[in-house]
Amino acid sequence: MRRTWELVSVEEARRRLEALFPEAARPGEEQVPLDEALGRVLSRVVEARRALPGFDRSTVDGYAVRSADVAAATPENPARLRRVGGVAMGEPARVAVGPGQAVEVPTGGVLPPGADAVVMYEETRRPEISEGGGAPGQDPAPRETWVEVLEAVPAGANRMGAQEDVRPGERLLLPGRRLRPQDLGLLAALGELEPWVRRRPTVALLSTGDELVPPAAELGPGQVRDMNGTTLAALCRQAGAKPVAMGIVPDTREALDAAVAQAWRSADLVLISGGSSVGERDHAREAVEALPGARVVVHGVAVRPGKPTLVALAGGKLLYGLPGHPVSAMVIFHLFVRPALEHLLGVQHFGPGLPPVRARLTRSIRTAGRREDYWRAQLLQDERGWVAEPIVSKSGAISSMVKGDGLFRVPAGVGELPEGAWVEVEPFAFWAGA
Amino acid sequence: MRRTWELVSVEEARRRLEALFPEAARPGEEQVPLDEALGRVLSRVVEARRALPGFDRSTVDGYAVRSADVAAATPENPARLRRVGGVAMGEPARVAVGPGQAVEVPTGGVLPPGADAVVMYEETRRPEISEGGGAPGQDPAPRETWVEVLEAVPAGANRMGAQEDVRPGERLLLPGRRLRPQDLGLLAALGELEPWVRRRPTVALLSTGDELVPPAAELGPGQVRDMNGTTLAALCRQAGAKPVAMGIVPDTREALDAAVAQAWRSADLVLISGGSSVGERDHAREAVEALPGARVVVHGVAVRPGKPTLVALAGGKLLYGLPGHPVSAMVIFHLFVRPALEHLLGVQHFGPGLPPVRARLTRSIRTAGRREDYWRAQLLQDERGWVAEPIVSKSGAISSMVKGDGLFRVPAGVGELPEGAWVEVEPFAFWAGA
Repeated sequence: MRRTWELVSVEEARRRLEALFPEAARPGEEQVPLDEALGRVLSRVVEARRALPGFDRSTVDGYAVRSADVAAATPENPARLRRVGGVAMGEPARVAVGPGQAVEVPTGGVLPPGADAVVMYEETRRPEISEGGGAPGQDPAPRETWVEVLEAVPAGANRMGAQEDVRPGERLLLPGRRLRPQDLGLLAALGELEPWVRRRPTVALLSTGDELVPPAAELGPGQVRDMNGTTLAALCRQAGAKPVAMGIVPDTREALDAAVAQAWRSADLVLISGGSSVGERDHAREAVEALPGARVVVHGVAVRPGKPTLVALAGGKLLYGLPGHPVSAMVIFHLFVRPALEHLLGVQHFGPGLPPVRARLTRSIRTAGRREDYWRAQLLQDERGWVAEPIVSKSGAISSMVKGDGLFRVPAGVGELPEGAWVEVEPFAFWAGA
Repeated sequence: MRRTWELVSVEEARRRLEALFPEAARPGEEQVPLDEALGRVLSRVVEARRALPGFDRSTVDGYAVRSADVAAATPENPARLRRVGGVAMGEPARVAVGPGQAVEVPTGGVLPPGADAVVMYEETRRPEISEGGGAPGQDPAPRETWVEVLEAVPAGANRMGAQEDVRPGERLLLPGRRLRPQDLGLLAALGELEPWVRRRPTVALLSTGDELVPPAAELGPGQVRDMNGTTLAALCRQAGAKPVAMGIVPDTREALDAAVAQAWRSADLVLISGGSSVGERDHAREAVEALPGARVVVHGVAVRPGKPTLVALAGGKLLYGLPGHPVSAMVIFHLFVRPALEHLLGVQHFGPGLPPVRARLTRSIRTAGRREDYWRAQLLQDERGWVAEPIVSKSGAISSMVKGDGLFRVPAGVGELPEGAWVEVEPFAFWAGA
């Protein structure tokens, strides 16, 4: 059956996709060990069950003191304090600091009771004579008993409070955060060894096209190896999803109906590449519409590359028909599939959206006119900043994506961009789940 | 033994580190299947063993024609061509296009011999009468035998040449590339199913500090859970290396000597966190110097956070002493360990270095003065662009890294930065192997 296109804009297609989100079933949660949690998406808030560091600590190697005792100290007129003991790392303080006293304390050691500051070793010295310091009626103290402080320190100096890093009850990590190395470190510090994360959505990948053979096959005349099974799987992984390879499906109604139904039953989301145009051999739409309760909300987008794009929902699962051309399939994944996977994962972007690279075109280009146009470009620098070298190629040419560093968008209705025009290039490096 | 610091600048430390690179042994190569190759670093050039797509193809659904036959075609005066057959997807063209002839061809189908362009279906129609077109002496042809072309097409239109994507022998991917989804697609198209990549360097992680307990342990007074084992392992993974957890080593010469020697024998690179200061209980340097042929090239860097940093080489392997404070350890990893891992992997940055985010400080800060100073910041946007909210915290406070979106650097010698000063924030998202 031949249809004609009813193209919608990228913006409208995105709106229709997002309108489906409330009906799209999120994968469940699971707990993962910290060493497998990098990049996973937190599904529950992490509240601090305790304070960090949990006790008053010294941040330097030195002497715990009462700051009032050393307020007037100078190198010429040091404050002489009696060393009444030391704190061992990882142990409680067994001695308090009284007036005129000091307790030796290592970096990270417990601040003894009575002390309100720490003087670094570098600002102290051992007195050269020992007999001057003994308290009346006592034996002269050995030289090691005394310490001279050469600089005043304010209260709180070189000390980290028990709750200074984290207060108990603090909401530290919110659901939707992709866990970064430092987030895992915080969880380790709190003893939260198995955070709750969203299960990776499974994405069934089907390629259709009688010209396609698997990458491992020898090529006959007129045949090409399937690329989309590989590129889309990698894009899924970058987005935090789990690709499920379902291989190449023959270009018949029956075969595609059966494969799509199986994919739809087994995965959280279905990507059919090829067969989504309006030709007589394009059966993706029929296969999707054969599913119970299926609704096709987009079929045809005014974008280059990527016109033959189909978006549908059936039984709480999203299904896509993607263009067969490898470049088109990647661009459409970026525009419409990644956002859906982020929705399923519950991803929240807490940090800044990564800004595109503003660059000047190295030469003029003729654009798609009525369709929004996505160009591949190489990014280079000259003495005035970034320049973008547009890559002219057909959407079947994977080499344009390989040579390119990123994409820039030309809005619909722009017929031409002159040399030197500013474009905003989104580097492919940003696609990697950032 | 107490030493005193001989601090070197970040730049000088980096120079001394890089001077060791020629002596640092690279891990070997291995072949990996495409579905495990995402992000791996290519170790050999990939040359095209064949052309892509490999045959002349149509890029649209339509009719393959000789462009000269339709040069004068208009909707009012169409060119009438005899449809002499069709091409099936994935099969050779079994019929050529002679003068006055057309062959139906699907998108991606083989262009038949004789044709030099393709006319889209949309620019053709079936003639309303059939009797007019029969050749003399033949039966009147059925209506399906004829096609009218409504628009001229230039030679080469809607056609992709056999070598247009990739020419045989082209050097497509150079060693040092981190493989992206599109690179894997290209390898699939070429039938290169097991690219050669650099083996992931193994990184032994030791934490030392008597206050440390494993994340799974209950805390006694004065104890904290080890964070560096978790954060550094995740940073290694992001960089493409393989962390090997060696746990917490007691703060004694003997224990650290034994653990460092074992780590050094078993891994490609060793990270010792804690024990790299110049205090009496700091044994990292001695443990490293006890290895045969060890050379310590940096011990102490003029940077905040991260002063107690040690860089050494022994037997072709790099060893680092990292600060025990979790923030410091992460910053030092970023400055000195990641570049070394990239060297071991042979990473080449083909694309643009990701540009930092230029932002205005929300308030004035007092900086480290004589040391290069790395601040954590939140990135926010106001009506004039990006603003950076500096996070004041001690380097033991992991929450500053968790709240932060990135780091900015203040050069040594700057005492203060006023509110509104421009800083360049490098988002943490960039750390992820981009």
